Amino acid sequence: MGEALALAREALDLGEVPVGAVVVVDGGVVGEGFNRREVDQDPLAHAELVAIRAACATLGRWRLDDATLYCTLEPCVMCAGALVQARVGRLVFGATDPKYGAVGSQFDLPRDPRLNHRVAVSGGIEATPCRSLLDEFFANLRAK
Amino acid sequence: MGEALALAREALDLGEVPVGAVVVVDGGVVGEGFNRREVDQDPLAHAELVAIRAACATLGRWRLDDATLYCTLEPCVMCAGALVQARVGRLVFGATDPKYGAVGSQFDLPRDPRLNHRVAVSGGIEATPCRSLLDEFFANLRAK
Repeated sequence: MGEALALAREALDLGEVPVGAVVVVDGGVVGEGFNRREVDQDPLAHAELVAIRAACATLGRWRLDDATLYCTLEPCVMCAGALVQARVGRLVFGATDPKYGAVGSQFDLPRDPRLNHRVAVSGGIEATPCRSLLDEFFANLRAK
Repeated sequence: MGEALALAREALDLGEVPVGAVVVVDGGVVGEGFNRREVDQDPLAHAELVAIRAACATLGRWRLDDATLYCTLEPCVMCAGALVQARVGRLVFGATDPKYGAVGSQFDLPRDPRLNHRVAVSGGIEATPCRSLLDEFFANLRAK
């Protein structure tokens, strides 16, 4: 989660909503990313999607059953759906997103019996530093 | 939808689940894609995501409020979430996906009041040719 936080800090420095994500297999990082929606003008460039795509490119396969994705923020609907599509084995996330979170807050897609894959979930891990970065971003935004 | 069907046919020729998508703004195509999960070994390479990313690259912006996305199949959770993230104005889809469809079948995410954008939806448009391609794919798969 430390590395995901460092990536979120990179996003913050670019003026992006600070979210970072890392994909780990067998104790090694195989993919990482941070939110770059504004920089890339790409609505799909959430940290999780960037990290999943990078991991699949590294491994040369689309199934990530053996992977853990660490993310500083509870994933949205799109990203939770992507975790299921990529068959990610485990998700560890930091801060919860009470408004749009899709892993226990507004939806619980990685554990939804209607979908064809279940993701093991640990939430609220190192939530305080993850949340602090987001608070810093929104405080900056209000100050502008 | 004719163009989306032609793209789905390209996917079929590559041995992919045949789904095609086209993004239209002001009567012109600004992005297109077909499912290329196996070819690219990318679980995010669904037709809709490929088309949305292409459209944003063409237009140089991430908001697609003025766009209509045509897709041969009812989007999954990930793709429905992406439509919301991209603020797509309107979705027109062909065949329904009773098992995993997230636009009226198992979920109805583009019209979910918990999310921060609503997508206008027309489903079942030219459903028969869209479904035929999928049937052809699965018949081929069973024959192998």
